[in-house]
Amino acid sequence: MMIRIAEITVDSIYLAEYLSILREEARASVRKEPGVLAIYPMHRKTEPTKISILEIYADRAAYESHLTTPHFQHYKTATLPMVRSLELIDMDAIDVQTMTGIFRKIE
Amino acid sequence: MMIRIAEITVDSIYLAEYLSILREEARASVRKEPGVLAIYPMHRKTEPTKISILEIYADRAAYESHLTTPHFQHYKTATLPMVRSLELIDMDAIDVQTMTGIFRKIE
Repeated sequence: MMIRIAEITVDSIYLAEYLSILREEARASVRKEPGVLAIYPMHRKTEPTKISILEIYADRAAYESHLTTPHFQHYKTATLPMVRSLELIDMDAIDVQTMTGIFRKIE
Repeated sequence: MMIRIAEITVDSIYLAEYLSILREEARASVRKEPGVLAIYPMHRKTEPTKISILEIYADRAAYESHLTTPHFQHYKTATLPMVRSLELIDMDAIDVQTMTGIFRKIE
């Protein structure tokens, strides 16, 4: 499993447009790619231009395949002028067992 | 729904002990509290003392009830000397629909 948090700051002028493109990309990724287990986009309540995306891939190959998809390529190209900063932070789960419990309940 | 990311830096001397207490607390919360929908603890791959916890509660009342539970109180008290910094960041989901898709696949 490969887990990442993307920390993105968006230019406020483009925020609504950015969110619309991100939503489409996240939905398409989860729906079309078996190896994309989770793309969970959030923004800060008090600073809506600060976006955090929790991304969970089955493995590194699934992530690399994701980068080549038309929906990701469209997202990347279309939002490039809207993004002020981007940090990709590789994470490890501290407890996979708890993770499963979580998902059962929200479903 | 109430979504929060807790960003915690732990003293490296206490890291193993901290993680053990956190795991217990997260498991107990998800198992015992209907209103705790998700507690998903992660650490940075390259800086394991930097912890991010994604927390999803049914509502504010569920969060406030969580704070009064014995398992949370134990976590809070036992880890207080281990924590160097703590930031609580309130978030909103950008797309609840995608969120549901995520959970179905990981389960």
